[in-house]
Amino acid sequence: MSHSIHNKKLLARIRKIKGQAQGLENMLVPETEQSEASVPADCMKVLQQIAALKGAVNGLMMEVLEEHLREHLGVVELTQAQREQEVDQVISVLKTYVK
Amino acid sequence: MSHSIHNKKLLARIRKIKGQAQGLENMLVPETEQSEASVPADCMKVLQQIAALKGAVNGLMMEVLEEHLREHLGVVELTQAQREQEVDQVISVLKTYVK
Amino acid sequence: MSHSIHNKKLLARIRKIKGQAQGLENMLVPETEQSEASVPADCMKVLQQIAALKGAVNGLMMEVLEEHLREHLGVVELTQAQREQEVDQVISVLKTYVK
Amino acid sequence: MSHSIHNKKLLARIRKIKGQAQGLENMLVPETEQSEASVPADCMKVLQQIAALKGAVNGLMMEVLEEHLREHLGVVELTQAQREQEVDQVISVLKTYVK
Repeated sequence: MSHSIHNKKLLARIRKIKGQAQGLENMLVPETEQSEASVPADCMKVLQQIAALKGAVNGLMMEVLEEHLREHLGVVELTQAQREQEVDQVISVLKTYVK
Repeated sequence: MSHSIHNKKLLARIRKIKGQAQGLENMLVPETEQSEASVPADCMKVLQQIAALKGAVNGLMMEVLEEHLREHLGVVELTQAQREQEVDQVISVLKTYVK
Repeated sequence: MSHSIHNKKLLARIRKIKGQAQGLENMLVPETEQSEASVPADCMKVLQQIAALKGAVNGLMMEVLEEHLREHLGVVELTQAQREQEVDQVISVLKTYVK
Repeated sequence: MSHSIHNKKLLARIRKIKGQAQGLENMLVPETEQSEASVPADCMKVLQQIAALKGAVNGLMMEVLEEHLREHLGVVELTQAQREQEVDQVISVLKTYVK
């Protein structure tokens, strides 16, 4: 990534996702791991948290994709060969993501 | 669309989607519309047909998106302003599509 | 499908999808098929139409799935074996649809 | 959640997601936070990691949903009112998740 992804917004999104995943773990396991018993979680809360997590991941994907398109395909300095390689890469990621 | 989407592959995808939608309608309504009674459809077949329809729509989206990226952002002739407009458009479509 | 899907709402959704697919075809092919030349379509309109089509397919899936869950798993008369088979079927459809 | 989600498979999925999110953060920020400079990340690696993260979240959703359907709607002991409430809840989660 020629442009450096250093903007705090992106890192904030990733840390939010980490927090949501930690929240899921906390719903299932008490702080102290020693006790084998797991916390009977509220199904709906778990399912809703996973739905929120998916939304956060989609938001992250769109932000990185937008930045990538702008900083790569959105600039005039690329050669035709570089452009074709960039389009190949974007399409391959979208094919994995859009199902 | 400066490039003309005339390739038969794209139209074949669209006609397949029409056929799948028609297939769904046939599962529910007998050929002769006169009779009010509808055909009790096999739930699983209907649900599976809708899942197949979604897959076909995704395939169509990826094909058009790929062609669009190649023929617009993938060429060197655009000005910076044109590039930015193209990126704006692609991002706006992706934000509607990727949820 | 023990319950008969005869409600007009469902058929209206399916016919809307057929109409959207037909709209896509019209964007690419002039009414008279004779002329080989295809209509250079407006990329964004085609991409937006496909996004709308996906939304319509999702709406249809949720409506049929809701009706299926209510009329099958939502009733008390099923045996344990029937319930397990119903859950198996719903899960298999969701695994195909949710990617 | 009457059934207790204590099986290690579910927690392993959540911890994998945490690991993937951590991996994304590491791509952007060097271990030592002190330095303001961020690591210029490889776009494709970041985009591919996000796509993998989405896949992991989908896998988690399907696992919890399956367990929920089996242990709630898949058992005979529920009353009609309880069944209807369960169906309402599953549909509301699916409507948030399936877009």
